[in-house]
Amino acid sequence: MFGQAKEIILAIDGGGTTTRCMAIDSGGLIRGTGGGGPSNHILSPLDVVRASIRQAIEEALHTAHIAPGDVRCISLGTAGIGPNGEGKEIIEEIAREVLSTETVTATGDMVIAFHGAILEGFGVVANAGTGSVVYGVSPSGANRQVGGWGHILGDEGSAYAIALEGLRAGARHFDGRGEFTTLVDRIPEALDVSDYIQVALKIYGLNMAREEIASLARTVDAAAREGDEVSRRILRAAGEELALGVTVAIRELGMEGRDLPVSYIGSVFDSGEFIVRPFAEAILLRYPRVRVLPPKFPAVIGAFFLGARAIGWSISAEMLMNIKRCLLAA
Amino acid sequence: MFGQAKEIILAIDGGGTTTRCMAIDSGGLIRGTGGGGPSNHILSPLDVVRASIRQAIEEALHTAHIAPGDVRCISLGTAGIGPNGEGKEIIEEIAREVLSTETVTATGDMVIAFHGAILEGFGVVANAGTGSVVYGVSPSGANRQVGGWGHILGDEGSAYAIALEGLRAGARHFDGRGEFTTLVDRIPEALDVSDYIQVALKIYGLNMAREEIASLARTVDAAAREGDEVSRRILRAAGEELALGVTVAIRELGMEGRDLPVSYIGSVFDSGEFIVRPFAEAILLRYPRVRVLPPKFPAVIGAFFLGARAIGWSISAEMLMNIKRCLLAA
Repeated sequence: MFGQAKEIILAIDGGGTTTRCMAIDSGGLIRGTGGGGPSNHILSPLDVVRASIRQAIEEALHTAHIAPGDVRCISLGTAGIGPNGEGKEIIEEIAREVLSTETVTATGDMVIAFHGAILEGFGVVANAGTGSVVYGVSPSGANRQVGGWGHILGDEGSAYAIALEGLRAGARHFDGRGEFTTLVDRIPEALDVSDYIQVALKIYGLNMAREEIASLARTVDAAAREGDEVSRRILRAAGEELALGVTVAIRELGMEGRDLPVSYIGSVFDSGEFIVRPFAEAILLRYPRVRVLPPKFPAVIGAFFLGARAIGWSISAEMLMNIKRCLLAA
Repeated sequence: MFGQAKEIILAIDGGGTTTRCMAIDSGGLIRGTGGGGPSNHILSPLDVVRASIRQAIEEALHTAHIAPGDVRCISLGTAGIGPNGEGKEIIEEIAREVLSTETVTATGDMVIAFHGAILEGFGVVANAGTGSVVYGVSPSGANRQVGGWGHILGDEGSAYAIALEGLRAGARHFDGRGEFTTLVDRIPEALDVSDYIQVALKIYGLNMAREEIASLARTVDAAAREGDEVSRRILRAAGEELALGVTVAIRELGMEGRDLPVSYIGSVFDSGEFIVRPFAEAILLRYPRVRVLPPKFPAVIGAFFLGARAIGWSISAEMLMNIKRCLLAA
């Protein structure tokens, strides 16, 4: 579509629910995109992970009209890989099986999120989608993950955690155990059932997936926007939990006194002021020299930057401008 | 074993994990016991529920050397039935399919728990095992359930909730987000892994069952006993949450000014003073005339009492003494 292919990096952001692939050329033009299912190899069987990565890659090549031979590098960040690359060999091997190419490099999803949001250098990024994790890098290149324990051991401040708080606040009010919240009506509405008892029957009866439950975080957000105090408190607490992770990363990386970029990504931060403000305030209260900034690029672009670095492409201003332009057009 | 069978009630306590059956005669002698798998028909397929009830009944008859024809009544309380009998027809039909007998009566597990713990009259019972629910009955016979929303919408104060709090406290300390707790070592020990990262890998990797995770409440209990402040706080908060449910039931049933028995059952209360004391204190602070008492009988005996009432047996002192004696001997 943009002329003849020369050299392509396949950048992949692999999560517990979906996998996203972008075929990006050396000029920063996004030539094609593809999607697949889950690719967290801790939570999903390897053949599922392989199928997800294969589908995402094939779709991206197909929409880009690119032959596999034009791919110079596959750069992946997936949710099953640890902050220091623990488990990356498994994902790299799977990617090589799907498409044999010169350079294949995999890292954790928090690492590509960091490089997308902050680009280069040091700083901290809070990532709150269905799950949550905070990841920081120090000026000396040391890194630190805080959180990222999954829905059973943690994920404080995540969409799933917010949804559970909302569901429970509604149940508490229904029982007479908790103060009034419009969630007691909004949540049944969102799930298209008649009352709160039916909410429980639907969630358990359908064995509703965690991602689907997590989407109720949007209902909490909507209630907060219309003035529901309980929902606002839930979001504020989530923002503060994520801020706690950030301040711990700053402290543990010895960056207390520094001017420092902190960014945030993931669906939870779409709640805007109800999350971002308490998040920023709690960080600044502790570390006033921090700059809390929206992410520069999504995580999948962070994977592209890491791939580019791996094969020696320099990241030019023109490349960045093209990426921005393509993302806006998408 | 106790001589020739005449008339038998099969009393059944059916939960989300196990089903328990006792064959009890008109003298209060427990003639046989049996067990089966889950029988919550909201959470498990009906053929699983049927198999669980069948196995529990057949085992009880077998150990009692009793012929099906000697069974006069089957009285069940199961976790899928609501406090006002919602869904009981399904369970009664299944029981009739398993063993055709004169009288079959089913109710919610919170109802049999109440009648086991308090026997007759009015009062409130808090039930905290893997899940949690509070159930009260007023002098006029009105009833009220508080909680019982399951692990996604609630179950505050349950073993599963305590286990999650413990797991998260360990993860928070591991990260540097939370104060010191011995759980950071005790939980890996309990799961027979080397460190906290391995705890996460094991729980997610094995897709560990909720009941198995809930058993970590015992680890929190053990840590509390050895002085771990974080664990003590977790248990205290659980006791207070359960107490909140009790005070709401008292208020909603209009029993605020009354002398009133409140009891408690379920594995969580085995933590003794760390749970029972804050539970009792929080209730008495609000309603000083409440008497907080250990349960008189387990829930399955409550099912027996309801069955006895259904077929017109009077509950004599001798019957109660025999039941107590049999339970102690078991």
